[in-house]
Amino acid sequence: MGSDRIQVGIIGASGYGGIQLVRLLLEHPQVELAYLGGHSSAGKAYSEIYPHLNNIVNLKVEPIDLDAIAARCQVVFLGLPNGLACDMAPALMAKGCKVLDLSADYRFKDLDTYTTWYKKERSDQETAAKAVYGLPELYREDIKTAQLIGCPGCYPTASLMALSPLLKQGLIVPETAIIDAKSGTSGGGREAKVGMLLAEAEGSLGAYGVAKHRHTPEIEQIGSDLAGSEIRVQFTPHLIPMVRGILSTVYATLRDPGLVRDDLLTIYSAFYRSSPFIKILPSGVYPQTKWAWGTNLCYIGIETDPRTDRVIVMSAIDNLVKGQAGQAVQCMNLMMGGEEGLGLPRLAFYP
Amino acid sequence: MGSDRIQVGIIGASGYGGIQLVRLLLEHPQVELAYLGGHSSAGKAYSEIYPHLNNIVNLKVEPIDLDAIAARCQVVFLGLPNGLACDMAPALMAKGCKVLDLSADYRFKDLDTYTTWYKKERSDQETAAKAVYGLPELYREDIKTAQLIGCPGCYPTASLMALSPLLKQGLIVPETAIIDAKSGTSGGGREAKVGMLLAEAEGSLGAYGVAKHRHTPEIEQIGSDLAGSEIRVQFTPHLIPMVRGILSTVYATLRDPGLVRDDLLTIYSAFYRSSPFIKILPSGVYPQTKWAWGTNLCYIGIETDPRTDRVIVMSAIDNLVKGQAGQAVQCMNLMMGGEEGLGLPRLAFYP
Amino acid sequence: MGSDRIQVGIIGASGYGGIQLVRLLLEHPQVELAYLGGHSSAGKAYSEIYPHLNNIVNLKVEPIDLDAIAARCQVVFLGLPNGLACDMAPALMAKGCKVLDLSADYRFKDLDTYTTWYKKERSDQETAAKAVYGLPELYREDIKTAQLIGCPGCYPTASLMALSPLLKQGLIVPETAIIDAKSGTSGGGREAKVGMLLAEAEGSLGAYGVAKHRHTPEIEQIGSDLAGSEIRVQFTPHLIPMVRGILSTVYATLRDPGLVRDDLLTIYSAFYRSSPFIKILPSGVYPQTKWAWGTNLCYIGIETDPRTDRVIVMSAIDNLVKGQAGQAVQCMNLMMGGEEGLGLPRLAFYP
Amino acid sequence: MGSDRIQVGIIGASGYGGIQLVRLLLEHPQVELAYLGGHSSAGKAYSEIYPHLNNIVNLKVEPIDLDAIAARCQVVFLGLPNGLACDMAPALMAKGCKVLDLSADYRFKDLDTYTTWYKKERSDQETAAKAVYGLPELYREDIKTAQLIGCPGCYPTASLMALSPLLKQGLIVPETAIIDAKSGTSGGGREAKVGMLLAEAEGSLGAYGVAKHRHTPEIEQIGSDLAGSEIRVQFTPHLIPMVRGILSTVYATLRDPGLVRDDLLTIYSAFYRSSPFIKILPSGVYPQTKWAWGTNLCYIGIETDPRTDRVIVMSAIDNLVKGQAGQAVQCMNLMMGGEEGLGLPRLAFYP
Repeated sequence: MGSDRIQVGIIGASGYGGIQLVRLLLEHPQVELAYLGGHSSAGKAYSEIYPHLNNIVNLKVEPIDLDAIAARCQVVFLGLPNGLACDMAPALMAKGCKVLDLSADYRFKDLDTYTTWYKKERSDQETAAKAVYGLPELYREDIKTAQLIGCPGCYPTASLMALSPLLKQGLIVPETAIIDAKSGTSGGGREAKVGMLLAEAEGSLGAYGVAKHRHTPEIEQIGSDLAGSEIRVQFTPHLIPMVRGILSTVYATLRDPGLVRDDLLTIYSAFYRSSPFIKILPSGVYPQTKWAWGTNLCYIGIETDPRTDRVIVMSAIDNLVKGQAGQAVQCMNLMMGGEEGLGLPRLAFYP
Repeated sequence: MGSDRIQVGIIGASGYGGIQLVRLLLEHPQVELAYLGGHSSAGKAYSEIYPHLNNIVNLKVEPIDLDAIAARCQVVFLGLPNGLACDMAPALMAKGCKVLDLSADYRFKDLDTYTTWYKKERSDQETAAKAVYGLPELYREDIKTAQLIGCPGCYPTASLMALSPLLKQGLIVPETAIIDAKSGTSGGGREAKVGMLLAEAEGSLGAYGVAKHRHTPEIEQIGSDLAGSEIRVQFTPHLIPMVRGILSTVYATLRDPGLVRDDLLTIYSAFYRSSPFIKILPSGVYPQTKWAWGTNLCYIGIETDPRTDRVIVMSAIDNLVKGQAGQAVQCMNLMMGGEEGLGLPRLAFYP
Repeated sequence: MGSDRIQVGIIGASGYGGIQLVRLLLEHPQVELAYLGGHSSAGKAYSEIYPHLNNIVNLKVEPIDLDAIAARCQVVFLGLPNGLACDMAPALMAKGCKVLDLSADYRFKDLDTYTTWYKKERSDQETAAKAVYGLPELYREDIKTAQLIGCPGCYPTASLMALSPLLKQGLIVPETAIIDAKSGTSGGGREAKVGMLLAEAEGSLGAYGVAKHRHTPEIEQIGSDLAGSEIRVQFTPHLIPMVRGILSTVYATLRDPGLVRDDLLTIYSAFYRSSPFIKILPSGVYPQTKWAWGTNLCYIGIETDPRTDRVIVMSAIDNLVKGQAGQAVQCMNLMMGGEEGLGLPRLAFYP
Repeated sequence: MGSDRIQVGIIGASGYGGIQLVRLLLEHPQVELAYLGGHSSAGKAYSEIYPHLNNIVNLKVEPIDLDAIAARCQVVFLGLPNGLACDMAPALMAKGCKVLDLSADYRFKDLDTYTTWYKKERSDQETAAKAVYGLPELYREDIKTAQLIGCPGCYPTASLMALSPLLKQGLIVPETAIIDAKSGTSGGGREAKVGMLLAEAEGSLGAYGVAKHRHTPEIEQIGSDLAGSEIRVQFTPHLIPMVRGILSTVYATLRDPGLVRDDLLTIYSAFYRSSPFIKILPSGVYPQTKWAWGTNLCYIGIETDPRTDRVIVMSAIDNLVKGQAGQAVQCMNLMMGGEEGLGLPRLAFYP
C-alpha cells in the first residue's frame, strides 16, 4: 500500500455488515472511509442509525450513484441483500474499482447452482468467472490479483476452516462429513423479525433450514475443489441465544483409523502455518466462540474417537468479523498489496 | 393410588434436582412431602437455601438417617452425586421403600460398564439387576412393578426419544448415528464452578467431553436393547448460554432411502401413541427448547435429506423436568398405580 | 362459580397478553375457552401462530364479530392496542358480557388525563366511570361487583404494590417518591422492532421514556387515591436483557425517621394480610424477578437507610402474569364469585 | 514517554482485572509486559488460565517477590483483593516503582472511613496521603505527578461522571441525590459463587447491598470534594443478567427549576471539554451500556422533568475497562507523560 490512504466506500452501510466495516475501516491505518451509501437510509446521518457513533462518524448515508462512487473510491464493499450486487459490480469494475461483495452473488463458479438455491436468473457468467472466493487461507494468491471478490458466508467460513485440511489431504471419507453449526442471532441481520426478538430467541435453541440451507452448496463447491472430486455434506444450522459467534462441530470418518489426535494437530498446524488468524488449540482444548468475539480469529480444536474411527473438529469464529466484514478487509489488504492482518483485531476482550 | 396421600422423601434436596422435585411434589395431588435430607445443608430451613420458598415450604433439611426416613416415607428420591446412592438404596428397599435414584448408580445392567466410565468398583450386582431404567416411554410396564428405578440422564432422555423408533424398527444403519446435543448450564448442577459463571458462559458456546462423555454408554445400552444388537453412537454435548433445555440433533443414514419425512412422522406418531408427553411436530416444524420449559414434554421434529439419504431428528426437553425430576415423578406415578401424568406440567409459559 | 364452566373469549389473542391468557385459562378449573379472535391473524389455526400448542389448542382465530362473541361468551378479555377497546366494550356490556380490558382505555377516571397521555379523544365518560381498576389487592370489593375492568399496566402493578402501604398510611413524603423500574423485553409485545431484537437488546441495558412514560399518570392516579391528595412521582423504566420480569426499586423519604426496617415489614405484612399473592420477604432478603417467573406472585423486600432517612422498597413480578394476564384472571375470579387464586400458578420453577 | 518501552508488571494477574490489563497492555504502543504474578496460580502458564491466549501470551505466572518485581518493572499494577495492596505498595514505591492499585486500599483520604467500611485496621496514613484518586477527568494534573494511584471502583466511576458537573457547579440539592446503578455480573470477579452462576443469574434481576454498599463512601468522598461540603448520597446497586457494563441512573432535585435539558447538555459538554473518553449524547438520546463495551468510553445522557424539578442523568461504561483496567492504563499514560488515550479502545463492536 502507498503512503496515501486508500479511498473506500460501502454500499449498504446500515446493516450489521456495514457497521462492522465502518468499525474496522475507521481504525485501519491505510484507509479513508470516503462514502457510505444506502437506499432506505439515504439522507440520514450515520449516527442517527447508530447513535453510539455520534461525534465519532460524521458521514451521511448517500443515495447510490455508481458514477459518483467510482469517482471517489478505489475500493467498494457491497453489503446488500442477495441478488443486488450483480447489478452493480460490473459498472463499478468498468470504472476501475476493486469490488468486494458480502452477498452470495459472486460465490459460485456455476451460476446454475446459484439460480437453483437463490431463485434468481443470471446471465453474467463472464463477470462471475472473474470473481475469486474470498477465503484467504485457501485462495490467498488469487485474491491478491483479483478485482472482484465473492466474500464467503459466515457458516462456510467456519465450516471450511475445520474441514479443509481433512479434504485437501484426503484424510476422511467425504460423504460422511456432517456439519452441525450453531450461530448467534446477529447472523440474521438487522431486519425486524418476530423470531429474532429477544423475547422469542432468548433462553431457547432450535435448528432451522434443515437439509436445505443455502450455505450447503457453497461449502460443497469449495470442499469439492479441495477434495478434487464432487462431495456432498450434511449441513444443519442452529440459532443460539447469543449475539455473535459461530461454532461448527464437524464429524467425519477417518480413512485411516490409526490417525490420532496429535497427528491431526500436527497436520492442521502445518496446513495453516502461514495463516496468522487461525489458532490451532492444544490437545484436549476445545474452542469457545467468545474467544473470537470482536476479532478476525478462527480457533480450532480437534478430537479423534477410537471407538468410532471418527474425527471431530470444532471451529469458532465471530460471525460478523472473520465470518463477514473482517474477512472482507483481510481480502482488501491482500488486493492492495498490504499485510493481510492490517487493521484487524487479534485479541478478544474476556470475559 | 389410595385416598391417603403418599408420604415422600428426598435425600439430596438442596441441588437443582431436589428443588425441581420439591416444586413438582408440592403441587402433586396425591403426595405429601414428608422429608427433605442432605449432608452439608442439614439443619437449615429449606427456604434459607431457596428464599423464594419463604412461607411456602416450611420444612427443614434433616440429616440422613435411613431408619427414620424409611419409617416416615413410602417413596424416596435420591438426588446425590454419582456413587452414593448404591450405598443407601439397599437399606431403604429392605425396609420397604420404593426408591428412585437420579444418579447414574442404577442405570447400568452391566456394572463393569459403570466402573469403566464412573471409576467406582461395585459389588452389588444383585441389587443393580433389580433396577429398571426409568424411561416410561420405553419401559412403562417394568416400571409399574419395580421397587428401584435408575432414572435416566438428561442427554440420554432427549437422545433416546429421538432415536428409539429408528432403532426399534431397524430403519437406520446404527453405526452411522451421531448425536450432537446442546444443553443449558443448569445441567451442571448448583455447584460453584468458574466455567459456569454467567460472566464466563454467557455469550459463548462450546463442546465438552468430546468422544468421552459418560452419557455415551447409557445411550448405547438402551439403544442396543432396542436394536437387538450391540451399537455404538457418536455423542457430543455442548454448553449453551441459557438456563434450561436440551436439544438433541440426531443424524443417521436410512437403510431404505425411499423413506420420506411423512413416512417417519407416521412411524413416530404410532410409536409414541400411548405416550402423552411426546409431541411429534407437523411436517417442516422443528422444536425450540423453550416450548418444553417447565414441562414434562418432549417435542420431536423430523427431516429427511434425499441428497444424503439421511434422517435428521431433533428432540427438545427441559433438562431438569423431563430430563430429570419430572420423569422421576412420572415413574413414581406408574409405580404407585396412578396415571403417569399426575402432577406434571403439560404447558409451558411463552415466551 | 357454578358447576358449569364459564364460557370465555379473548379478542386479540395472538399477542403476548393473549397467549398468557390462553395458557392460564386452559388449566383453569372452571373455565372453557370458547372464542379466540383477532384482526390480522383471523382464519389461522392458533397453533400456526404458536406451534408449541399443536395438538394442544385446536381453536382457530376468528374474525371479530361482537354479536357472535356475546352469544358465546359470558366473559370477554380484550388484548388489543390502546384506543380500540373503548370502541368494543360498550356493545359487549350491553349484551351482558363481563369485560376485562388489558389496554389503557379503562384505567383512568379522568379521560382528559387519558387524552393528554394517549393522544386520543374520548367521549365515553359514562362507560369509563363504571370501570374498576383491576388491582385486587387495593380494589377487591369493587372488582367483585364490576362489569368492566381496566386492567393495570405492568409497571404500575409492581410499583403500586411497593408504594401502597407507604402512601395509604402516610409514612412518606409523597413528592420524594422515585420509582426506578426495570423490565424484561417481553413488555414491548410481539411486534417486530429493531431495538427489541436479541442482537440489539442482549448484553445491554438502557433507560427509555425518561420523565414521560405513560405509566406515570396511572401510578399517580392510584397513588393519589391512596394518599388522599394529589401526588407526583418520578418514574423511569429501563429495558433489561431478559424475557420476563419487572423489578421496581422505590425510594422515598420517611416522615418519621425513627421507623426501622422491621417496623415496615410488620406494616406491609398487615397491609397484605388477605392478599395471597403478595410475599413479604424476611429482613435482609431482596427479591429476584426470577422467583416470580410464570406465577402470579409479587415479592417485596424492604430496607431503610438511617444515614438518609429513606425507605427503599423492591418489588418483583412476572410482567406478563401478575403484571398483565394473571392479574386479569384474578379479577375474573372475583367477578364470578370464585376464589381469587383459581387457576393461577403460585410456584415458580427455579432456576 | 521515551523511545524505549516501559516495563510493566501485574500482581494479581489471574482475575478479571488482570486479564483486562493483559489485553490492553499487549496492544499498548509504549509498554512491554514484563511480569505477571499471583499466589494461587503461581507456576502456571498464563494461557493455562486463559486458553484463548495460547501462543499469544507466553508468560508464566510467577510468585510474588517484590525485590524481583521492582528490579524488572517501572510500573506495577496491583489487582488483588482489598486489604493486600497496602502491605506491598510501600516497598515497591521505596524501590522506585510507580504503583497503580485496583483495590480499595488507596481510595480514601480518611483511613477511618476505610476501616469502618472495609473492616481492616490501617496505620499507613503517610503512604495513603500520597495516593491520588485515579479519575483523570477530575484529577488529571495530580495524577501526572503521582507515584501511587488508588484506582476508583466501577460504580463510583460511572456515578461520579454523571454527578460531577452537577455538584461542582452547585446545580442540585446534594442530599436529594439518588444513584440507582445496574451492573453486569463480571463486576463480581472470577471467584466461583453460586449466585453468580449463569443458571442462577440469567433471566433474573435484583438489588444487593442496599443502603450499605462499600462504594457509597467512595462516591461521597469525591462528591464532597467537588461540592465543597460534606454530602450524603443514596446508592443502590443491582445485578443484571449480562457480562459487562454499568448503567448509573442518577436523580437529583435542581436548585434552579428553570434549568432545562439543553442547558445541562451545554454545561456537561463544557465540563468534559478536555476529556476525550466522555461522550455527551444529543438531546433525547439515552445511553446503552453496549455502546461502551470493550472501550474506555463513558456515555452520558441527560433529561430534566419540569413536573418534578428533577434532573435525571444516565451514564454507561464498561465496568472492566473505564470502570477498572482501562482507567488504570489511562492514569499510567498520564503518570508517564504520555497522551492519556494511548492504547485504549475508543470504538465498540456493535451489536
